[in-house]
Formats: sequence, structure tokens, C-alpha cells
Amino acid sequence: MRKVIDFLLYDWLGVEGLTSRERFAEHSRETFDGVLDTCGRIAAEQFAPNNRQADVQEPRLDGDTVVLPRCAYETARAYVESGMLAAAQDYEMGGMQLPCSLQMAANSLFWKAGVGLGGAPMLTTANANLLMVHGTSVQKSVFALNEFSGRWFGTMCLSEPQAGSSISDITTRAVPDGPGHTDDRLGPRYRLYGNKMWISNGDHEISENIVHLVLAKTPDSDGALPAGTKGVSLFIVPKKLVDANGGLTGERNDVAVAGLNHKLGCRGIPNTLLNFGEGRFPVAGTAGAVGYLVANPGDGLRCMFHMMNEARIAVGVAAASIGYAGYEASLVYARARRQGRPVGPAGKDPASPQIPIIEHADVKRMLLAQKVYVEGSLALGLFCARLVDEQRTGNPTDSADATALLEVLTPIVKSWPSRWCLEANSLAIQIHGGYGYTRDFPVEQYWRDNRLNMIHEGTHGIQALDLLGRKVGADGGRAFQTLLAKFKSVSEGAAAFPELSRFGVALREAAADLVRSTAQGSSGGSPSEVLANATPYLEAFGHVVMAWIWLDLARAAQQQLLTDHLTENEARLRGVVRAAGYFYDYELPQVRAWLTPFEERNATFREMQDSWY
Amino acid sequence: MRKVIDFLLYDWLGVEGLTSRERFAEHSRETFDGVLDTCGRIAAEQFAPNNRQADVQEPRLDGDTVVLPRCAYETARAYVESGMLAAAQDYEMGGMQLPCSLQMAANSLFWKAGVGLGGAPMLTTANANLLMVHGTSVQKSVFALNEFSGRWFGTMCLSEPQAGSSISDITTRAVPDGPGHTDDRLGPRYRLYGNKMWISNGDHEISENIVHLVLAKTPDSDGALPAGTKGVSLFIVPKKLVDANGGLTGERNDVAVAGLNHKLGCRGIPNTLLNFGEGRFPVAGTAGAVGYLVANPGDGLRCMFHMMNEARIAVGVAAASIGYAGYEASLVYARARRQGRPVGPAGKDPASPQIPIIEHADVKRMLLAQKVYVEGSLALGLFCARLVDEQRTGNPTDSADATALLEVLTPIVKSWPSRWCLEANSLAIQIHGGYGYTRDFPVEQYWRDNRLNMIHEGTHGIQALDLLGRKVGADGGRAFQTLLAKFKSVSEGAAAFPELSRFGVALREAAADLVRSTAQGSSGGSPSEVLANATPYLEAFGHVVMAWIWLDLARAAQQQLLTDHLTENEARLRGVVRAAGYFYDYELPQVRAWLTPFEERNATFREMQDSWY
Repeated sequence: MRKVIDFLLYDWLGVEGLTSRERFAEHSRETFDGVLDTCGRIAAEQFAPNNRQADVQEPRLDGDTVVLPRCAYETARAYVESGMLAAAQDYEMGGMQLPCSLQMAANSLFWKAGVGLGGAPMLTTANANLLMVHGTSVQKSVFALNEFSGRWFGTMCLSEPQAGSSISDITTRAVPDGPGHTDDRLGPRYRLYGNKMWISNGDHEISENIVHLVLAKTPDSDGALPAGTKGVSLFIVPKKLVDANGGLTGERNDVAVAGLNHKLGCRGIPNTLLNFGEGRFPVAGTAGAVGYLVANPGDGLRCMFHMMNEARIAVGVAAASIGYAGYEASLVYARARRQGRPVGPAGKDPASPQIPIIEHADVKRMLLAQKVYVEGSLALGLFCARLVDEQRTGNPTDSADATALLEVLTPIVKSWPSRWCLEANSLAIQIHGGYGYTRDFPVEQYWRDNRLNMIHEGTHGIQALDLLGRKVGADGGRAFQTLLAKFKSVSEGAAAFPELSRFGVALREAAADLVRSTAQGSSGGSPSEVLANATPYLEAFGHVVMAWIWLDLARAAQQQLLTDHLTENEARLRGVVRAAGYFYDYELPQVRAWLTPFEERNATFREMQDSWY
Repeated sequence: MRKVIDFLLYDWLGVEGLTSRERFAEHSRETFDGVLDTCGRIAAEQFAPNNRQADVQEPRLDGDTVVLPRCAYETARAYVESGMLAAAQDYEMGGMQLPCSLQMAANSLFWKAGVGLGGAPMLTTANANLLMVHGTSVQKSVFALNEFSGRWFGTMCLSEPQAGSSISDITTRAVPDGPGHTDDRLGPRYRLYGNKMWISNGDHEISENIVHLVLAKTPDSDGALPAGTKGVSLFIVPKKLVDANGGLTGERNDVAVAGLNHKLGCRGIPNTLLNFGEGRFPVAGTAGAVGYLVANPGDGLRCMFHMMNEARIAVGVAAASIGYAGYEASLVYARARRQGRPVGPAGKDPASPQIPIIEHADVKRMLLAQKVYVEGSLALGLFCARLVDEQRTGNPTDSADATALLEVLTPIVKSWPSRWCLEANSLAIQIHGGYGYTRDFPVEQYWRDNRLNMIHEGTHGIQALDLLGRKVGADGGRAFQTLLAKFKSVSEGAAAFPELSRFGVALREAAADLVRSTAQGSSGGSPSEVLANATPYLEAFGHVVMAWIWLDLARAAQQQLLTDHLTENEARLRGVVRAAGYFYDYELPQVRAWLTPFEERNATFREMQDSWY
């Protein structure tokens, strides 16, 4: 995977150019490579060998304690020591001022080696990043800094048992903690009461403390919780109480793990149901979890949304990484396993030796499809991460364009890899035959691990509603137009390469088809009529986006072949062009079938009656 | 599921009409219903409650003994007592002379409740059925009869570690067992030496004895094994030696379990690596597993092929049944789970109560897609089983047609349900959200269990080669022509129903497209050029077959609506018509994308080089 990452970062995305910007001025190709080398080494030496262990020895609850295998501690420590928790932060926060694209690429190496290992570090980073934007200086120095250093780990507590994707229905309450509650140096002090579900890393003994970021509602004067999302605020709720210097007070906060979820995959990460304020650990003799308000009352969702783009890019890159792990495993297997014989003009010759299965056309198909799904997903993920860099450090025009592109690409970078890299993992099993169905090979675990990615951080269906209901039409379609301009320039650029020109034409036609279909399907219908086919629309949109990505990758490869012809890179670069060809011949033609029911506002789903099932 | 089975068997396939045939003369709708009622009750009461148990407590090896949870014994006993092992056999063999269509429907109830339970009874039935056709009268009475009664269970030993799908490469040897080897009343006696892999139920203590059917090669005069499949013979190798009256001699045969495969799913069925003749249990002081030849030397594959159609239909129906289990579970969940609110003209009203998720269009989509995949698969499976009945008891013309149809439909009934009911199981997880990813709900197990079906009994890719390389062109295309005639008659019949006429047109066009594409893609290319796109061709062919099945189901439903209008069946029948509509609007249009690369003999896969990955 590393060679592909290098190609994507340096030859395609030109991240080396970022070093001319002030924020990244102390970096160079050498420092970037150093980070990737270090992370690759830790991932290979400490994560990969423990990936099965974390799966087999899943978290269990012993009284109030979450018991994890030793490798959970070791890999978490190794990740902390890599410095990656604060990779993108300022030097003065202990960070490396690394571009987001580099950070994401480095993390992909860990996710490929063991997505459930290392203490789910992205959560801690995201938690601390949020506090860096919305927290007070004390909250930053006490909570964020201790998370960046790995002394404490963080969580995100949004979902509740009765409110999975529907934040407006949360019922966790936060009430001011006595008359002096606004005087606390850590922030306005509240007591929280409620249950939070699906909390990754919700409890463990890996770090000295756990910093929960919790969404809750503050009751109005007659004690009722406000409807909708307007009354939702964000609170810092540490597992163990701390003082304003970051020292532990010795007192436990009233947060208790009520149960573990026994998952299909990603078992290295304990997933918990947490009870807040039920009195299991009363504070100063009173039930209620102590929490400190972040930003202003009612800002909860705004604070959370701030980190959503990056979290969703991370899901896409993680899905790509797990897909990559399966791709590599099946490539190794297909080269080594001998089975069957080629069909010649006279049939098969049973006296000839069996051939490696990689020589069978159908195995080539399954390997090439995987390559297209996983490398395309990784490319899209790093492209989006590069947009984050542009958003933060580019000139105003480029930054605004990057923001627009991120708006419309976020649902795609979350959903496309989640769906198609899962398919890639299934193909990896298929190549292994019966062996792929056993725990003697890693591919069945990859398939299980990857199944989560269509569910968390907004389900597949929610991404579709986000794309069609918000992003495509937002701001007069500005984001969509910016993306179409990208399609156009790549499509036109392809004309310069004889091998690619027909793909350029196909991309132009697919983009025009998408535009026409979007207009036709969206105009004149009620929201529920338009949105009823949001998911087929998402699939179509995603495939057109990937056609654009693959053509641009093929262009970059062709460009390089002009200079690198007959070098060691030649075969790999030809593979990129061939992969693009696969996408255009086998994948892109599916788009029409998804668009038709959308543009016709097909009523099949809307009209379906419960009693007809 | 039972109501759907009734609709398929009685209203669509007209199986009641079979009772006018001599073989089924003692049967009636009442006896058929009785079998389904009994099996449904046992499945619900004994299989379903133990399905998770068999998954969690997977088989383990204690010395030479395979240890299974108690439910494995209880469910196997319950299945034996249902009489289903011999359901299709003659009364004089202890059978019920049940049509294959009824037997398959009854088994689907067990598979839905727990596909890994009951001792994988289909293997025992298939084993005994084979002996009824190819065995001597003593082999029938000693081995088959004791299998039909459930006293002994059976296995099929084909694969070897170095020869998964390639039977011509097996190296298990069978040598005549001394000078008097032809005098044994159980059949010509041989000693077998070799390893067999992936043997389901290869060892256990559920039954008194285990009857292995083993493929092996007999060395020629200079001790070499013949190349290819011509020298492959079939042997009966009992785990414990028996006499010609079916009594145990008290001596163990030289068959030893060398290991268990730890599987992703279907864990109720122990899957073993068996060593034959390694001397772990010497017979008369000598290493070598005693086996009795079935039919003539070299008949091994012919004997096995005889049972392949039914085995592959069974895989398809099992895939459909597991899919059905997920469909039902997600339907129950979607009706109970409240989440979110409808989008009205003024957006959402957060003060209104949350609605059951079945009211969301995207959840309706996921439920309807499941319905189409699983009910369509079940319909195709029972249709094929009905063809088996026609083949055996129809008049010569109908029987020949049935044989032809089975030839071309077998790769479809094996592959389509395996692929699309797995997708159905994934949708069932998706509807459950995070809960679907946990072991608190059954859907993740269904998804794991169903992943096997694309692998065993001939992988997906092998079905594609079978369809395109053998079946479609066989006998001057007779089988394909017979199928096309079926498409034509259903397409024409649809014209009588206004709601269906456009589907009739679409089916006619899809069939014409398939014919044209088949001719174009097959003619003028070398076998390897034609077969390189066999899998996309299989996908396309399967979808056209399902379009035909769904239109015929919709016709049957419409027909019944004319008489049953406003009865309790109305909603269900409308659901059938709507499901057909989903297939035509959302699924059938995908066919073109699969056919294009096939008919153009796209060289992407053939030309792909190892070094390009």
C-alpha cells in the first residue's frame, strides 16, 4: 500500500507543494516520508500481528472494569509514542503541524494493520481538536493537551438507546450544579443524567482518565426538555474528576459502564452503554455526573458538526484501508495457490501442472475489482483530506472552493468506500475459496470489521439524504458546480492521452447525465417524493465521482509513464491505467440503472404499504 | 414464510396436481400441509431457539472426538423423527414418496430456523439417494436404509487440500484389499489412503456410525495415479466397520479426524479434515481405510454428478431461507423501532412523536429489496424442485423439457440466491443500525452463515463457467431455447393484465437482448476469450431469469386478486405485484451493464498482468 500512498500524495496530489506554505514550512518530502516510515513500521510490527488477537479476545466486563487483552494496551502505547494523536496540531501544543492529507495517509497504515487496535485513537484526536476550536483556554490546556499527549483518551457521546441517528430526541439532561456553578475554572458546571449508547472506548484502563464529550439538553423552567436540536449543548464529562491544573482530584465522576456491545467486528474497540448520573459513583454525596459546558448553551450540534467532515473522511479512509488489507491478502494467496489449468484450443491437459489461480480470468477480475474499489477509495479519501489542507491554508479563493467541494464530497467519501470496500473484502474471501471462510486466514475478519462503516458516523441512507437533501442544492448549487468544473477539466485533460480519450468522453457524458437527472428528479416534487430515491441517487453520484477520480489517476500515471517508461514503476503505472479501464467498462455503465428511478421519481418505495410485505 | 410457500406451491406451481400421478396418488393437499405443519413446528420449537447456541459453542476436538453442544444432538434427533431424511423415497424404503418440491419447501423451514442445525441432514439424504441409484442391493439395504432411518449419517468426501474445485487432481489412492477383495458382500473391497478437506459432518457422535462416500483414484500397474478425472472411482468408507446385515463388527475403520475448520458461520456443522489410511486405527493390523466400490471403477464422477442438480438447488433454497430469516427479523424490527419523523412541506416537526422506521422510504426500499431477493430465490428454488418432479414423473415430453430446463437453470438457482440473499442479509443488518452489528440480534449471524453459499457446491465463478461453457450451448442450445420459450409465454401472458403489460414488454426485450448478446459474445472467439467474462454474463442471465420468475409470480397474484379481491390475501398479493415492479424498475436495468463487456469480449481481465496489481 505504501507505494500507492506515495503515488497518491506526491505524484497525484502534489502534497510536497504544501511545504511552501507557512504552516508547513518546516516540513519536506523527507519529514513526510519519515512519518509514513515510522507509522508503517509500528503498524507492521505491533498492529498487524495482534489484529486477530483483538478479535478473538473481545472486551469483557468484570464488575465495573472493562477487561482488554494486553495487545490493546501495547498498541495504544505505540500509537501514543508515534506522536500521531497531535499530528496536525501546532508545535506549541506538542503537535507536528502535519497536513491533514499526511495525517490521514499515516493513519491508513494503522487501519489496514488493525482497525480495532491502538485505542481507537481518532476519537481522542477528534475530541481534542473540537476542544481546540470551541473550548476555553483552561479546557484546552487541561483536557485537549492531556489528550494530545495520550495521558487521557477521549470519547464522543451522542447516541442514546431511543435516539440513534435522531439527535433531537436525546433525553440526557444537564442541570446547573448549584448556585456557584458558573464559577468553576473548568467551565460552567452541570450535573448530567441519562444513558448514552454505542460509545466507543467508553470505558477502559488504557489511559489514566477518559474525557467524554456529551450532548445533553438543559430543561426549561418547568423542567421539560426542549424539542428539536436547538436546546442541545455540549459538555466535558471526565471519568475521574480533575482540577484546573489537570491533576486528578482522586474522586470518581458519576459515569458508569452499564454494558458492552458484543460486536460482529472491530472488537478491539470496547463499545459501551454508559450511565450518567445514576448514583453509582455519587459526587460530593449526590448522584449526577459532573460536566463542564463547552461554548454556549445550545451550541452542541454546531460544535459537533465542526468535526464531522474529518470524521467522515476518516471512515472512508478506514474502509479503504480494511479493503486494502483484504486485497493484499488475496493477492498473496492467488499468487501462491495452484488450482486448475488453462483452457487451450484442445481443452485442458490434465497431465500438465496446476497453475497459480492468479492466472484465471475470473480471479484476475476479482483482484482488479478490489484494486479499483480500494485504491479508488483511498484516493478519494486523501483527495478530501488534501481539501481540508486547502481549506485551512490555501488562498481565499482556493479555500472557498475546497470548502464547497468538501460539502458535496463528504457524503461520497463516507459512503462509497464503506459500500464498495466491503464488496472488495467479500471478493477477497471468494478468492480464498473455503479457506477464506475460516479463521486460518485474515480475510473473514476484514469483511466483518468493514461492515461497521456503512452504519456509524451516519448510515448509508443518511448520507444519501445529506447529499440530495442538503448538499447538491445548497447555496444555489455552488458546491455541485465546483465539482462539475473539476469533472470538466479532468475530462478535457484526458484528450491529450490517446489511451484515455474515450474515458474523457464517457466522463463528460456521465456528468451531463447526472446534471440532467438531478434537475429532472429534484424539480417539481415534494421533498418526500424527491428524497424517496435518495439512495439510488447516492450510488449513481458516487460512481460518477469515482469515474472522475480514476480518470485523473490514470492521467497522472500516463504522465509519469512518459518519463518513467521502462523503470521499476512502469508495471504499477500500467496497472493504474488498466484499473481505470475496468471502472469505465464495468462500473460506470451501472449509473443509468440508478438514475432512472430517481429522475422519474419512482413511487415504488413511497407507496409501499406495511401490510404488503 | 409459510404463507409464501403455500402461494408458491399451490397457487403458482400447482403441486396439488401431482397427486393425480401414480407415485403421489396417496398424497393430497392435506398430507402436504401436514408435512409442512410438522416441519414448521419442529423448526420453530427446536431449531430456531438453538440457532445462536450452535454459533457460539462451535465444534471442538477433544482427542479423537468432536464435541458438539447438546442442541446439535437434539435437533438432529428431531429432524430424524420428522421422517424427512427419506421423505422422497419409496414407502418400502421407509419413505413418504413426497415430491421433491414439497421436500425442498419443508427443508427451507429448517434452514430458515437454523441452517447449521439438525446434523446437516441433506448430506445424509443425498448420500443415501446416490446409493439408491448406483449401489448394489446389499449396499442399499446396509448403507442407504440405515441412513434414511437416521441410524447412521452420511458425508461426501470430494475435496482435498491441494485440490479444491479440481477433482482431476485428487491424490487419494484406492488399492484392492488382498486377493479376495472382490468376494466381499458389501462390494469390491479396497484400502484407501489420502486426506480429504472440507468434509461437513466428517466426524461426530450424533449417529451410531458415519457413511463416507469417497472419491479416489486406483493406481495403474506401475503404481501411478491416472491423470484427469477418468480414473476417479467412488467408495463407501464407513467410520466403523459393518457386516452385510448392517451390524457393527466392533472394529473401527482407519479414518481419523485430523482437524476442524474454524468457520465464519454455519458453525453447527463440524467441518473436518479427514485422514484415510494413515494407520491411526489399523484394520486387521494394517493401515488403510476399508472401502467398498460403488458402481464400476472410473464411475466416480458420473455417480456424483447425478446428485449435483439437487444439491445445487438445495444450496439456492438454503440461501433463500437464510435470507428470509433476515427479512423477517428486520421487518419485525422496522415495525417496532421508532426513529425520526416524516418530512412535511414545512420540514420536520420535532414536537411530534417519532415514527416506526418502516415508514421511512429508505427502510421500505431495504425491506422491499430483501423481499424481492428472498422470495424470488425461494420461488426459483421451488420451481427447479418442481422440475425434478416433472423429470421423474412427467410424460416423456414434459420430462425431457424439465431435464433441459434444469440443465440451464442449475447454475442460476445455485448462484443467484447465494449472491443476492447475502445482500438481503446485509440490508437486514443495515435496517437494524448499530443493533444489527451486535450479537443481541440474529441478523449478523445470518449474514455470516449465508456467506458460505457462494463458495461451496461449486463457487460463483464455477457456476459461470458451467452456464456459459457448457449449458447455454449444449445440445445445439436446446436447454436455452426451452427456457426462452418459457420467457415468451410468460411475457405474452402478461399482456392480459394492464398492470403487468409493460413488464411483459420489458421481459421480451431483455430476453431478446440476452439472445443477441449470447450469440455475439460466443461466436468467433477462443474459449478463453469467451469465458473471460463468464461471471458478468452469469449475473446478467440470472437477472433475466428472475425477471421472468417475478413476472410469472405477479401474474399468478393478479389472477388470484380477480377472485380473492378484498379477502385476507389481498395485501400479500398486492405486495407480490409491487415486488415485481421493484425488480423491473430497479434491478432488470442493470443487465445491460453486465452484457456489454461480455458481448464485446472485453480483454481487461485476460490481459491483466500479475505485476500490474
